[in-house]
Amino acid sequence: MQNALEQQLRFLLETDKLKTIERHTVLTDKSRFENDAEHSWHFALMAMLLFDYAQPGVDLLRVLRMALIHDLVEIDAGDTFAYDEQGYQTKEARETAAADRLFGMLPEEQGAELRALWEEFDAMQTPDARYAAAIDRLQPFMNNVATDGYTWVDGNVREDQVRKRMEAVHDALPCVWPLADAHIRQAVEKGQLKPASKTE
Amino acid sequence: MQNALEQQLRFLLETDKLKTIERHTVLTDKSRFENDAEHSWHFALMAMLLFDYAQPGVDLLRVLRMALIHDLVEIDAGDTFAYDEQGYQTKEARETAAADRLFGMLPEEQGAELRALWEEFDAMQTPDARYAAAIDRLQPFMNNVATDGYTWVDGNVREDQVRKRMEAVHDALPCVWPLADAHIRQAVEKGQLKPASKTE
Repeated sequence: MQNALEQQLRFLLETDKLKTIERHTVLTDKSRFENDAEHSWHFALMAMLLFDYAQPGVDLLRVLRMALIHDLVEIDAGDTFAYDEQGYQTKEARETAAADRLFGMLPEEQGAELRALWEEFDAMQTPDARYAAAIDRLQPFMNNVATDGYTWVDGNVREDQVRKRMEAVHDALPCVWPLADAHIRQAVEKGQLKPASKTE
Repeated sequence: MQNALEQQLRFLLETDKLKTIERHTVLTDKSRFENDAEHSWHFALMAMLLFDYAQPGVDLLRVLRMALIHDLVEIDAGDTFAYDEQGYQTKEARETAAADRLFGMLPEEQGAELRALWEEFDAMQTPDARYAAAIDRLQPFMNNVATDGYTWVDGNVREDQVRKRMEAVHDALPCVWPLADAHIRQAVEKGQLKPASKTE
C-alpha cells in the first residue's frame, strides 16, 4: 500500500501544474486570465449548485469526479481555445499522449478508472458526460457574460460558433437554455459577438 | 424556478472572487502563492484520489461538496493563516457574517443546506468532516514539502504547531500518517521547521 500511496502523492503533486495552465476566460473582475484548476473548481461547484436542473438519472458524484480530472491532460497538451479550429486538429493526439503519461503515474487500477472517466467525459455520450459537458461550457459562458463578452470580443467570435458550443446546454440543461439564449442575443445586439456568417 | 436559477447564477458569479483570495501556500514551482479556488480544487481531487484510505462510513460525495464550498466564506473574511493566533481570535465572527451574506444569496432551502454543510465541515466532528479536515491539511502540507518548507520558513513555524495542525491526518488518515510524520522529521532536520518550544 505504501508504494501505491507514494505514486498517488507524486501524481497529486504533478497535478499542481494545472494551476499554471491559462485559459481564454477572464475572472469577473477582469484582473487576469483564469487557469484550469480554478475553472475545474468552478465547474464542479456549478454542477453541484445546478444539479436540480439535470436530466433524470445523472449521478452527481460521477460528474464531480469528471469535473475534477477533465482538464488534467492540459498539463501536457495545453489549453486549446474553444474556437481555434487549427488547434482542434491536433488536440486529440496531444491529449491522448498526455493521458498516457499522467494516468500512467497512478496505481494501475486507479489510473485505468480515471482514464476511462476522462474518455467518457470527452465522448459526451452518457447522461453524466452530457451534463458535465453542459456545465463545462456554461461556466466560461457566464464569465464572458459578466465581462462584456471579453473572450468573444478578443477572439472575434461569431454567434453561430457560440450557439454550436452551447448545444450541450440546450440538450442537457433545457431549463437553463432560455436564459443562455437571451444572453447570446444581447451579446450580438451589443456587438460582443459577430453575427453568424451568411455564407455558412 | 426562473427566479431560483437567477439567484443561483448570481451566487456562482459572486463565488468567482474565491480565485482572488490568496493563501500562504506556494505552487510547487514556487512561481506565486496559491489561491482559495485552486486549493479547493486540489483538496477535492486529493479527497477523491486517497478515498481508499478513508475510515469506513465516509461519504465521498458529501466530502467533495464540503471541499467545493469550505472556503467560500473567505471571499469576505479573507484567508486566516493557519499559524496566526491573533487572526484566529476574530476568525469565527468574520466567517459567520460572510456565511450569512453568501449563503443568503441562494434560494432559502439550498442556502440553508450548504450553510449546514459548511458548519459541519468547520466543526470537524462527523466522519465526513474529519476526513475532509485531514485532506484540507494534507494538501498544503504536501506543497510545503515540495517547496523546501516555503510557508514554514517564511512564517517561522515550529514543529509542534505543524504536528497540532496535522492531528486531523493522524486521526482520519492513519495509513497516510507515517509518511507525513517522516516528512515533518525531515523538515526539522533540514531547518525548515523550528524545533518545538521547550517552555510549552
